[in-house]
Amino acid sequence: MLGMIWVRACSALVGFRAPTCVRSLHSFPGITVAQIDEEVAKLLALKAQLGDDGKTQFVLKTPKGTRDYNPKQMAIREKVFNTIIRCFKRHGAETIDTPVFELKETLTGKYGEDSKLIYDLKDQGGELLSLRYDLTVPFARYLAMNKITNIKRYHIAKVYRRDNPAMTRGRYREFYQCDFDIAGQYDAMIPDAECLKIVHEILNELDLGDFRIKVNDRRILDGMFAVCGVPDDKFRTICSTVDKLDKMSWEDVKKEMVNEKGLSEEAADQIGEYVSMQGGMDLAERLLQDHKMSQSKQACAGLSDIKLLFKYLQLFHVTDKVVFDLSLARGLDYYTGVIYEAVLTQASAVSAANEAQNGANAEESVSVGSVAGGGRYDGLVGMFDPKGRRVPCVGVSIGIERIFSIMEQKAEASPEKVRTTEVQIMVASAQKNLLEERLQLISELWNAGIKAEVMYKKNPKLLSQLQYCEEAGIPLVAILGEQELKDGVVKLRVVATREEVDISRADLISEIKRRTEA
Amino acid sequence: MLGMIWVRACSALVGFRAPTCVRSLHSFPGITVAQIDEEVAKLLALKAQLGDDGKTQFVLKTPKGTRDYNPKQMAIREKVFNTIIRCFKRHGAETIDTPVFELKETLTGKYGEDSKLIYDLKDQGGELLSLRYDLTVPFARYLAMNKITNIKRYHIAKVYRRDNPAMTRGRYREFYQCDFDIAGQYDAMIPDAECLKIVHEILNELDLGDFRIKVNDRRILDGMFAVCGVPDDKFRTICSTVDKLDKMSWEDVKKEMVNEKGLSEEAADQIGEYVSMQGGMDLAERLLQDHKMSQSKQACAGLSDIKLLFKYLQLFHVTDKVVFDLSLARGLDYYTGVIYEAVLTQASAVSAANEAQNGANAEESVSVGSVAGGGRYDGLVGMFDPKGRRVPCVGVSIGIERIFSIMEQKAEASPEKVRTTEVQIMVASAQKNLLEERLQLISELWNAGIKAEVMYKKNPKLLSQLQYCEEAGIPLVAILGEQELKDGVVKLRVVATREEVDISRADLISEIKRRTEA
Repeated sequence: MLGMIWVRACSALVGFRAPTCVRSLHSFPGITVAQIDEEVAKLLALKAQLGDDGKTQFVLKTPKGTRDYNPKQMAIREKVFNTIIRCFKRHGAETIDTPVFELKETLTGKYGEDSKLIYDLKDQGGELLSLRYDLTVPFARYLAMNKITNIKRYHIAKVYRRDNPAMTRGRYREFYQCDFDIAGQYDAMIPDAECLKIVHEILNELDLGDFRIKVNDRRILDGMFAVCGVPDDKFRTICSTVDKLDKMSWEDVKKEMVNEKGLSEEAADQIGEYVSMQGGMDLAERLLQDHKMSQSKQACAGLSDIKLLFKYLQLFHVTDKVVFDLSLARGLDYYTGVIYEAVLTQASAVSAANEAQNGANAEESVSVGSVAGGGRYDGLVGMFDPKGRRVPCVGVSIGIERIFSIMEQKAEASPEKVRTTEVQIMVASAQKNLLEERLQLISELWNAGIKAEVMYKKNPKLLSQLQYCEEAGIPLVAILGEQELKDGVVKLRVVATREEVDISRADLISEIKRRTEA
Repeated sequence: MLGMIWVRACSALVGFRAPTCVRSLHSFPGITVAQIDEEVAKLLALKAQLGDDGKTQFVLKTPKGTRDYNPKQMAIREKVFNTIIRCFKRHGAETIDTPVFELKETLTGKYGEDSKLIYDLKDQGGELLSLRYDLTVPFARYLAMNKITNIKRYHIAKVYRRDNPAMTRGRYREFYQCDFDIAGQYDAMIPDAECLKIVHEILNELDLGDFRIKVNDRRILDGMFAVCGVPDDKFRTICSTVDKLDKMSWEDVKKEMVNEKGLSEEAADQIGEYVSMQGGMDLAERLLQDHKMSQSKQACAGLSDIKLLFKYLQLFHVTDKVVFDLSLARGLDYYTGVIYEAVLTQASAVSAANEAQNGANAEESVSVGSVAGGGRYDGLVGMFDPKGRRVPCVGVSIGIERIFSIMEQKAEASPEKVRTTEVQIMVASAQKNLLEERLQLISELWNAGIKAEVMYKKNPKLLSQLQYCEEAGIPLVAILGEQELKDGVVKLRVVATREEVDISRADLISEIKRRTEA
């Protein structure tokens, strides 16, 4: 499907042109009754918004599935981003940015069934456009377009999915992704191990509680299906059933495989044995000797790589959190090798994650607190290259919305107030008619790099100036009065202790810095 | 206009359904020949993308009017943003974020003629949505929705305008805005003066060359038009002609007023006298005594405020760059009081600005390098409040795309290379089979907060590791060899000087910090 032709049937919504409109619809063979019903419902909804006087009454809301971030949420968001960006930079990543929309055809054929969730822009003439669905496909398009074969980049930006919040509650339609990817032809498992090291560092530093990183390989899954007797054309659908093991019992998963997907009971039982296995390098070694698994070349290649991966992870001292788990089967089609997913294992964190309103599956968040995921996708860039040249890639995406939500809950529970500004000092006056003196002083402070505020009133009361400081968490007040001006000093007040001390104007800036730059 | 009904004329683009399609068009009365031509052109363009084998060939590009930012551009962008955000925070601003799209009706009726430039999303069921056109209207919606009457906030985000790059070259359809606004009922001109102080600080710190900040007031313009005999219903259109004075001669502006807009020659000449006036507080005082201007209450209110503004600007020591200019007439309808615009005045900066590809008018950038603008808009929030409650606002928007472009040119011209990462050290080896030792060492460095890279090869050549450092601007290399491992040291190499020194493993981290943390 490259596009559609849309013909404007009528350009007025209500009033005198409506009859023409209806006649046109009658004479037009392409429209269905359902489509007409839909249009009528939409018109009536719009009409309901018109007041008695015919004036539009604004609906004061953000679009369905989206939200504003208030200053407190932004302060938490900034803290989380800084931790993540610091880690990405520590690992030498550059950053890029791409437009919020892409040519529709760039996204076509990349997301399988989920393509129906893509937001399209209205055809207003010119190109057909869609909002980006993730950051991985734009990254692959960027690499192919600029013929880049080596890059380590991070990209933090919003993506858009027309999910139906009524069906899957807790899902946002606009949400952040936080991606780190390494593209290039390198020796096996070295960049893959670094991605896991990065997840480990970030989750440690964010202090979200205990976590585990599950690891598997697309080739091991495919090999396992083959040796268990799953027909080739059922790999994908059986894989997506295995993917449900973190929220369904094995019995229910087996029932789905056998009853709904038509797999033989014997094959299902064999799969059941494998997907219950968890371990480390030892498990990979054992499976390489397994009489059935070892028949699959693919599985052996995956198992050897898992062994190598664990060797590197040992050097990074992160194996305490990493588990080779044969039930891990991430949904996305484009993975070709190692895949991984980090989950929070603490009860408190999990319950926080339940509340998380993000782009991931809500049912998922009930059973696990998945906070990061990724894997190797060696074929995606080639889909964009006219000659199909491959650029191997491995990457990780941090589930930032869920992390925001946990951090917000932690902030709520904490007695400490979240500050939304970094203001060090308020320039206040104890008497009337000192606006000019306040403005002159605050100008000096700003020019010296001090973060300072002044009330935008000619004669504010001292009490209201002090109250403002308490509410905003401003630690210091510089109080000006006739006497202070005469003496060439400022009365420096510490809000928390109410201690007051006269400081000479010459020493003020260094004194503020000394007291606030911890 | 609340919306439109679109009827799908035919759902297949090419092939066997085309004849049906054409018949449908014939029997359909609402379509024009021009529309058919347009659709045909679109179909042929799509057909051209189909290869001989009928397979789609990807067009590897970003949508028209948009661009990717590569790592070098991102490094410059980050530097500029940091300077601006530091300034906004110094002035005590919080930050918020809003969705990239709004309900279509939120944007309706806010932008006058420019509404045609708004990107609409396709109606895929549910609400009608549009991409934001600026950050001011979403800010006003946010205030009204949350009943906020006092806030000082900044917001840095992308906005979208379906401008036609063919007509106005150098215009982007996706570009950043960088807004600082103060909302609340305060004493006159204090927040307004702070906005100008902020522009002054930012332009100074970015070091873009000399600049001037023009100031005027919507009430002075309206009063001037009234006393010059412009009919009430021509204020807006005459105002938009005055707005062209920075790129057209007075003669041409007068011609447009008289010939196109039907103003009397006498009225035009009187306007011409006023709009040639520039000055400071003295000019405001003189005009308050002007026998004609003083007849307008509006003008007098504006002039008194300009006087007060200059008084505060003197206290801030920024009057050297600020000029009261009666020809300044910013386009946007929603301004109600003081308005201002900062322009770069240096030739080099201006020529750089010519190249600037941003959301502002391209013709503008030929004559002036406008890099910031704003003003007071006391009525906008009330448009969203069901009871029309007003929240006075004043704000400034930094023309960040133009600034990026100037900074990029400066970086190009400079012999210094723009670094796209902050990596302090590369962990390298001089011999084969030392991958494990390299991984172990780099893990120690990462854990100590050092920004470090390692090549993802088992046995990279020393030369290629050193070359990578030169290209990426990495200042240090930690070289491991059999001898160093035996001695418990690392050979630390300074890339610039090629100096090498053995450092004990115990001292390595502090030595790296000492050498790289300037």
